[in-house]
Parts: sequence; structure tokens; C-alpha cells
Amino acid sequence: MGKDAALRESIAALASRVLLLEDRVAILELINRWGPAVDTGSSEFAAGLWDDDGVLESDLSRLEGPAEVAAMVESEGQQALIRQGCAHVQSAPVVTVDGDRATAITYSQVYLHTENGHDVWRVSANQWECRRTVGGWRLTRRVNRVIDGSPAPHTILASAFDKPS
Amino acid sequence: MGKDAALRESIAALASRVLLLEDRVAILELINRWGPAVDTGSSEFAAGLWDDDGVLESDLSRLEGPAEVAAMVESEGQQALIRQGCAHVQSAPVVTVDGDRATAITYSQVYLHTENGHDVWRVSANQWECRRTVGGWRLTRRVNRVIDGSPAPHTILASAFDKPS
Amino acid sequence: MGKDAALRESIAALASRVLLLEDRVAILELINRWGPAVDTGSSEFAAGLWDDDGVLESDLSRLEGPAEVAAMVESEGQQALIRQGCAHVQSAPVVTVDGDRATAITYSQVYLHTENGHDVWRVSANQWECRRTVGGWRLTRRVNRVIDGSPAPHTILASAFDKPS
Repeated sequence: MGKDAALRESIAALASRVLLLEDRVAILELINRWGPAVDTGSSEFAAGLWDDDGVLESDLSRLEGPAEVAAMVESEGQQALIRQGCAHVQSAPVVTVDGDRATAITYSQVYLHTENGHDVWRVSANQWECRRTVGGWRLTRRVNRVIDGSPAPHTILASAFDKPS
Repeated sequence: MGKDAALRESIAALASRVLLLEDRVAILELINRWGPAVDTGSSEFAAGLWDDDGVLESDLSRLEGPAEVAAMVESEGQQALIRQGCAHVQSAPVVTVDGDRATAITYSQVYLHTENGHDVWRVSANQWECRRTVGGWRLTRRVNRVIDGSPAPHTILASAFDKPS
Repeated sequence: MGKDAALRESIAALASRVLLLEDRVAILELINRWGPAVDTGSSEFAAGLWDDDGVLESDLSRLEGPAEVAAMVESEGQQALIRQGCAHVQSAPVVTVDGDRATAITYSQVYLHTENGHDVWRVSANQWECRRTVGGWRLTRRVNRVIDGSPAPHTILASAFDKPS
């Protein structure tokens, strides 16, 4: 291999590593825009985080596609939470990127405003699946299970160990 | 363009991307040192996170410049929180870097120790503005609004959508 | 210095910066796999996060080595928390990498499921020490001190200022 080819190869290898780091940032921020969207009632933005075939599944509901996500944000139930004062907060994720697909595991907390401060309404395990699209990373699936002693959230959390450590 | 010039250009482009990632880390850690500073009463360190013209604005107070930040940390109100046991925790931020300026959106939670564990005293939306100085990134403005159903925190959270997704 | 040598040096300098960013990601995810391990009772995975001489020290216990970590996860006390529904959540860390060693400071919250939502059982300051091994980064020490107005957690939090800002 010529000298220039070797240098070009070194640069390409570095560029792949930098892209992977950038992907991780993009996925963290994709996930971290969910809270601001649903806590402000920004249904269009909440919907825009999802790919066309995205599915949001929890013990509360199952939403298919951006239109159903938007409808949930505009629903009386969500609007009541917003009027009370709600905060959907994600922990920093454990992310696995595999080319144009990625998964991330987070804990989420939903805080609700009260007379004396804030209550913790729900603490859940979350598995997020994402796809790289021409417009950037988008959510394709989120499974949210409240941590209540049942096995469902354990399955999600245990997937944090599927990746090489 | 000669071969060397092309290689140098590739390296420079990569270096810009790496710097942007480094800036994101620096901004996350700048924000994440705020809690340790105010929860330990380290007024000098708390003040040192701010640029000279920095402003910290909340529904509780408006502080102008590092000296007023230090005075707040040393105030009887903050000292009482520290004696009780307080934790100012930030969520992982959504960061936008624009050259030598950056903004970040976080949720913050303040936990207070009680007889039975910890109460959640305040959950707030935060907009942080930062500037790159010769000494590193510094805070120039933070707006903190408790999430209580009022519109003020929504304006902050909605700014998480100003950046391209 | 010849042109090629200068280019190789530029590439090597960039590679060091990229490795440092990758190390930060690895350390964040090492720490963020602790919660999923202990909240699901995955004693083998919890133990596997630790180096052979790792020590986990808190006001509740002092565990020496992976086997004692595994035994704690399998203990009746931890199993009772898991049956109730527990979530060990870490804040995004302030990380200092020094070659093959690293330290990280986090706040941790432990949430417990109740009839009406979740209680915040413990909010603590954490100092994590890590080592790069042939199998990746591993924990060598964690000191966890509940934030209750006593000085011990302050010592941990103040170490977030040991690094250049």
C-alpha cells in the first residue's frame, strides 16, 4: 500500500469512529426531546420525532405512527397533566448503534406538580429503537413499562447487557 | 488540489467534528458542576462557573455576576438547604453549539432530605447559555422556571426544538 | 519533519482525542449499567462490571470483589426491593480520564414503587473509580454517601472541582 493510501485509510477509520460518537449524541438528543415535546403539548414536534411506522407501547396505551402520537399529546388526559405541571425526564441512555439502527435503554421519571413540590408519578424502564433516515435519526419503537415489581420492565433493563461491555 | 492538500483538508474537517464533540462534553460538565457547587456550599467554585456578565434568573431571584452567585451560595437560605441535605440534579442536556456560543436545555430536580427519604422540592425547566473563553466554557445566562402548569417553563422547553433534528 | 510525518502526527493527535471521547462514553455506560443490573437481580452482570479488587463502599455496607457484589444482589434485602419495584438512576457523570484510570462523580436516586406512584428512597453522592482492562473499563471503587446534611457526601461532590474546568 502506498503512503497516501495508508494515510487515507487512517483518516477513514477515524471518521467512522467520529460518526459513531455523533450518532450517539444524536440519539441521546432525539430521546431527550421527547419530554419537552409532551410537557409543552407540542404535538407536531412530538410526532416529528417518530418515523412513519413508529410504535409507542406502554401499559397505558399503544400508539401507531406519528398521527396517533400527536393525538395522544392533544388528548384531554395529557392536557390535564400539562395544566398541572408535568416533567418527563430521561436518564442518560445506554446506546447500541448498529449501522443505521440503534437501541437505547433509559429510566424515565414523570414528575407532577403539587401544592408542596412535586410527586413522582411514574418511574419506568424504556427501550427505544431508532432508525437513521435522510432527515436524521427517528424513533421506530419505544416500549415503556412502569417499574412496579412485575417482570416486564426487567426484560427491558436486562437488554442493557446485550451489548459487549 | 494536490494530494497533501486534500489529506490536510480531510484531517481539518475531522478535527472540527471532534472539537464539536469535545465542546458538548465541556458544556455538559460545566452544567453538571453547578449541583456539586451549590450542594456543598462551594461559593467560589459556583461563582467560577460564570462569566463576568453572567445572569442567573429564576422565579426565586435574579443574580448578576459571579459575586452575586457566590453571595447566594453563602446565604442563610442556601446554607439551611445544605444542612438539611440538598441535591441539585440536572438531566442530560439538549445542546446547540454555534461557534463560541452554546445553549443547553435541561430539566433540573432539587431533592431535600427528610426523615423518610427525600422529597422532590422543585422540578424546573432550564435554559443555559454559555460562552467559550480563554479559560474554557463559562455560563453567561441561566433561566430556571419551576414546572407548575404556568407558561414560563414551556417557553424554555420548546426551545429544544429550535435546533435541526 | 517530512510532509508525511506531519500528517501522521496530526492523525495520531486526533486519534488520541477520539479515544478520550470513546473512553468517556464507555465510562458513562459502565456506570449506567449498574442500575439495570441491581434492579433486575442480574447478579452475574452486576459482578462483571467490577474489577477483581473492586470495592463498593456505602453507609449501608462495604463489598469487596465481584463475589460480594453478586451476593448483595442475591440477598433477601435486595430481592425485597426488586419485588417492590426499585430503580437505581444515575445522573450524567462528571468524568476525569487519566490514561488507564478514570474517576466519575454522579448523583444517584433510588426510587421505590408505592401504591400512589414512587417514593424517593435515597439520593446520594457517588465517586466511581475505573480502570481500563483488556476486557474494557471496569469499576475499581465506588463510594456512595446519602445526602442527609452530613459532610461525607460533600467530600465526594467537591471532587468534581479537582479537574481543570
